[in-house]
Amino acid sequence: MASLDPRYSGVPVRTIRLVLRYDGAAYHGWQRQPGLDTIQARLEQAVLQVTGEAAAVHASGRTDAGVHALGQVAHFNTASALPPQVLLRALNASLPEDVAVVESAEAAPGFHARFLARRKTYVYQFVVGRVRDPLWCRYACSVWTPPDLDAMRAAARELVGRHDFRSFAREGSRKVDTVRTVSALRLFRWSRGIRLFATADGFLQHMVRTLAGTLLAAGTGRIGAGDAARILAAADRRAAPAALPAHGLFLWRVDY
Amino acid sequence: MASLDPRYSGVPVRTIRLVLRYDGAAYHGWQRQPGLDTIQARLEQAVLQVTGEAAAVHASGRTDAGVHALGQVAHFNTASALPPQVLLRALNASLPEDVAVVESAEAAPGFHARFLARRKTYVYQFVVGRVRDPLWCRYACSVWTPPDLDAMRAAARELVGRHDFRSFAREGSRKVDTVRTVSALRLFRWSRGIRLFATADGFLQHMVRTLAGTLLAAGTGRIGAGDAARILAAADRRAAPAALPAHGLFLWRVDY
Repeated sequence: MASLDPRYSGVPVRTIRLVLRYDGAAYHGWQRQPGLDTIQARLEQAVLQVTGEAAAVHASGRTDAGVHALGQVAHFNTASALPPQVLLRALNASLPEDVAVVESAEAAPGFHARFLARRKTYVYQFVVGRVRDPLWCRYACSVWTPPDLDAMRAAARELVGRHDFRSFAREGSRKVDTVRTVSALRLFRWSRGIRLFATADGFLQHMVRTLAGTLLAAGTGRIGAGDAARILAAADRRAAPAALPAHGLFLWRVDY
Repeated sequence: MASLDPRYSGVPVRTIRLVLRYDGAAYHGWQRQPGLDTIQARLEQAVLQVTGEAAAVHASGRTDAGVHALGQVAHFNTASALPPQVLLRALNASLPEDVAVVESAEAAPGFHARFLARRKTYVYQFVVGRVRDPLWCRYACSVWTPPDLDAMRAAARELVGRHDFRSFAREGSRKVDTVRTVSALRLFRWSRGIRLFATADGFLQHMVRTLAGTLLAAGTGRIGAGDAARILAAADRRAAPAALPAHGLFLWRVDY
């Protein structure tokens, strides 16, 4: 599986595919930024410590500040001969407690965590209750009044499919192509509230959190039947409700 | 239900009973201490803000730094006429996000959260896995090798009952009477590992965490059959394994 990389003048270079879990609360998101603590910077520091190589670690996509991950996928190239399981343990020994490598494997040549990602699933978690729960508020958005799950599901059906999701993208985002295929928006009850699972071929910045805000608005009656479709058709960020907080959002899995 | 308190010269004084939930990670435990951030200090600040009264808030017992609570019980006396549900909402508006009042009610005259507590139940939470879980490590103790649950339960049976628990109390603790009645030490599997529920008429400082460490030692084979009983009989802190970390411990409920 080793390929050649001119940087290492003849040393075989392997691509290592990682699955990552992290608590995003303490970080300024995935992407490396000067002077800020980010997940990517922590991973690259760990790779440098373990392999002695200043390798770039590429993820399937950036997660925003405060967003968590259960199954973020990333890769890096290395001339190190360490077996993937040894890399996993060594990287975890170098990483802070709130970031962990949960899987490590040698990838097929040419694997790229971002360019080859076919589908991503995020989870947005709501805790429902008249009183906030201090032991969940780090990982969920608190909602006082129980939302109407049927109304949320009806609104979700208006949004699933291949559409221009400009209304749900962060204003000022420079993305030109705002068409995405949302293959599923599923809502489930769990012991403390409601979970939204959103699957698409890709998401615009703030898109899951704005979709979650729109479905919540449907569940609490702030918008009615047909309004989600109208917000979508407007192709204007001002048409949609506010994005919900980052701490309720988890990147759940990435499919290749 | 109002009683008279000379401090308020004739104004009827009520006792308010609270049930509290908190994430203990950011606090130096329950008890007020000069210059340190504690749960009691936060509660008393909130009561002062809401009622204008500098009331002492008494809990069923101190929780140590980093220990969480799902059902801590506390009380305070007040001349305020605010209904308990209004107090609940007002206190929660004044409290930080990681501390919440989940129940508020007027107590019978003479109620005292500490002196009248008959029984307390703590939960100690283990997450089992070769890789740490960044989304649980704030609320559980990580264990690599799956412990033998039967061996843990056998050791637990050696410890239940009325005994001198000096071996399980923090060294240097000034408690003279170290006899307690542990009515239950129950172990359950959950999706991520093992939970220990410990019920007693009272616990010495570090006692639950040292019991948890002893049961874990039995589960991993570091101590054998009969050793838990021998540790107990030694009545010497040096006989028992180390106390496990505070962040895996939750005060679950208090019975009156």
